Amino acid sequence: MNDEVIYLDHAAATPIDAKVLAAMQPFFADDFYNPSAPYAPAVKTRREYEAAKQLLARTIGAKSDDLVITAGATESINLAFASVSGHVVSSSIEHHAVLAAAKLHDVTFVEPDKKGIVSADKIKAAITPKTQLVSIALANNELGTIQPIRDIAEVIRKERERRLLAGDHTPLYLHSDASQGVGQLDVNVARLGIDLLTLNAAKVYGPKQVGLLWAAPLVVLQPTIVGGGQERGLRSGTENVAGTVGFAKALELANDHRKFEADRLQKLRDKLQKQLVDAFPEAVLSGNLKHRLAGHLHISFPNLDAERVLFALENRGVLVATGSACAANKGTRSHVLTAIGLAPEVADGSLRITLGHLSNDESIAKAGTILVEEITKEYARSTR
Amino acid sequence: MNDEVIYLDHAAATPIDAKVLAAMQPFFADDFYNPSAPYAPAVKTRREYEAAKQLLARTIGAKSDDLVITAGATESINLAFASVSGHVVSSSIEHHAVLAAAKLHDVTFVEPDKKGIVSADKIKAAITPKTQLVSIALANNELGTIQPIRDIAEVIRKERERRLLAGDHTPLYLHSDASQGVGQLDVNVARLGIDLLTLNAAKVYGPKQVGLLWAAPLVVLQPTIVGGGQERGLRSGTENVAGTVGFAKALELANDHRKFEADRLQKLRDKLQKQLVDAFPEAVLSGNLKHRLAGHLHISFPNLDAERVLFALENRGVLVATGSACAANKGTRSHVLTAIGLAPEVADGSLRITLGHLSNDESIAKAGTILVEEITKEYARSTR
Repeated sequence: MNDEVIYLDHAAATPIDAKVLAAMQPFFADDFYNPSAPYAPAVKTRREYEAAKQLLARTIGAKSDDLVITAGATESINLAFASVSGHVVSSSIEHHAVLAAAKLHDVTFVEPDKKGIVSADKIKAAITPKTQLVSIALANNELGTIQPIRDIAEVIRKERERRLLAGDHTPLYLHSDASQGVGQLDVNVARLGIDLLTLNAAKVYGPKQVGLLWAAPLVVLQPTIVGGGQERGLRSGTENVAGTVGFAKALELANDHRKFEADRLQKLRDKLQKQLVDAFPEAVLSGNLKHRLAGHLHISFPNLDAERVLFALENRGVLVATGSACAANKGTRSHVLTAIGLAPEVADGSLRITLGHLSNDESIAKAGTILVEEITKEYARSTR
Repeated sequence: MNDEVIYLDHAAATPIDAKVLAAMQPFFADDFYNPSAPYAPAVKTRREYEAAKQLLARTIGAKSDDLVITAGATESINLAFASVSGHVVSSSIEHHAVLAAAKLHDVTFVEPDKKGIVSADKIKAAITPKTQLVSIALANNELGTIQPIRDIAEVIRKERERRLLAGDHTPLYLHSDASQGVGQLDVNVARLGIDLLTLNAAKVYGPKQVGLLWAAPLVVLQPTIVGGGQERGLRSGTENVAGTVGFAKALELANDHRKFEADRLQKLRDKLQKQLVDAFPEAVLSGNLKHRLAGHLHISFPNLDAERVLFALENRGVLVATGSACAANKGTRSHVLTAIGLAPEVADGSLRITLGHLSNDESIAKAGTILVEEITKEYARSTR
């Protein structure tokens, strides 16, 4: 990346950490063997693959046997939804992958509150005796709002208990896509109380096209890709050894530095937020400010054209998003901002600023100055 | 890889070419942007992704718009089969991915001849008015036998013509997985006369977990992974820029050197074959010796335990396979060898020796000597 660039879109993509790439390197041209081959070097490659899966499992407090390595969060989400055929419950502010997978089922989308929180009570009200899956992201990818997954898990637990006592064997699982939160939040599956977990290496300084789906032992997964029977028959195809080793290293690093990094990013984010709110008192902060990812800042400048600001910022080397990358690409207003009831003239002036490894005191101070200058200019232009 | 090792299992896995890795390198930590993000560096990343797809398309004589980038051949095959709901025709010697995907449909498996050729006549006989897909690999992954795809395509064309004249709109497509042949055979889709083509980067000195499915414009694909709508809605998930750039480079290199490399490998393979057949006149060569991948040698030593030979060879640094890696891993007799009618005492003494980039005069001469010595020892032991 150009040294002049100040990257503030860590929620969309992250660069591979040098330590992660170093861990992957041996598997490109040296230990390149097919892990299913019988000779010793391939058996060693398989062992390194299994060790990487064990490391991944350990960092989420799970067993390696309950992981399926996939080509990313979208595939994991599709695999999670394929485990059920009945009614599903999700929220209207989920990532497009969850929305699309949910729509293949009979689905109820719960609305969030004005701060983007999906309450356990609303989930409870949406669950019917036929509901088989509830899917809520740990943290919303646009707002950074952290959802009350433990409370939702408790609702699920009680409904399961009710069904058990009633002799009703309809399964009910809780799935959470924690791709967006994994660098800054605890993703221990037992503490979260979930049954299915999706993670994505590309959001945590690991390689692209690697993800995992963890499923509790009682969950019966149905493969979406059949073939050679890899991953216990749940996801066929030659194993991605380099990618999985890189993913494990990335998750281990995230785990080791989570507290430190979250504190660091929160301080930087709060400083930038204060600078912008002080300069533009009319600015609207979205999301739940108490329960929010440390590096996330969603801020709207009423009556401003965020896309114009984005390009003005880009000209000065500051890269931010107007919404999630997928939605932005389609030129439509964010479904998340619509769902939390942001007025169109506020929503259209929204920037999503997400800090991460590439952020430091200097770059954030410089970005703050440039943001204030460019937004001031744009306000001046638009009110002329 | 250890310099002492003589790798003769190129059909199972190939090391990433140094040029391919160099082409991928910028996309790991520098141009790591989400191709769907709106700012210029991300737009540049998207352009490089699109350029890589165009290069891939060019090498197979297709248009970039008709490619779907996947996580490998298995996913591509699943996507190809998901395009139809009716009867399918395949052969009993296909890769496990094709067998498994085919079994999700009403399927007729055609038997090959004794040399592993799936004849166009047998395909013709298996096609019913309800058949919607025929899937035959360009080259068999165990025997290396090259299938008469053009003849099969002609059968398909005639059946389509018949349906058209009869006012029958039932679609009929021909899919071929050319993963195994791409380094040594022409894979121009128009010349092959096919409607769907699967390729895998990992078999052609590209990265693992990258593949493509090409589909002719008239084929209506159904996504197996839904979400953000990438790849024209046919395969959602953030694009694998590094992997696709690597795949394109690998396919370009294969295309540029195909003739030279096929000639080189054929000479080496023929030399090794002669050495083994001279030393063991009872050896059985399987597959069609005229229509066979240049680097492929399938040879059986009757009444020998191939697994023992494999481990004896491994101790001396020579890595070969007893069958395809997937099947070998399951400890069952190869379905391909059963289908071509190899007697059990011949099948169980089978080695699959596949040459490739890592093979040269010196290594093949050395491997020949070691093979003769170890097989001689094993025959001596087993007849004691």
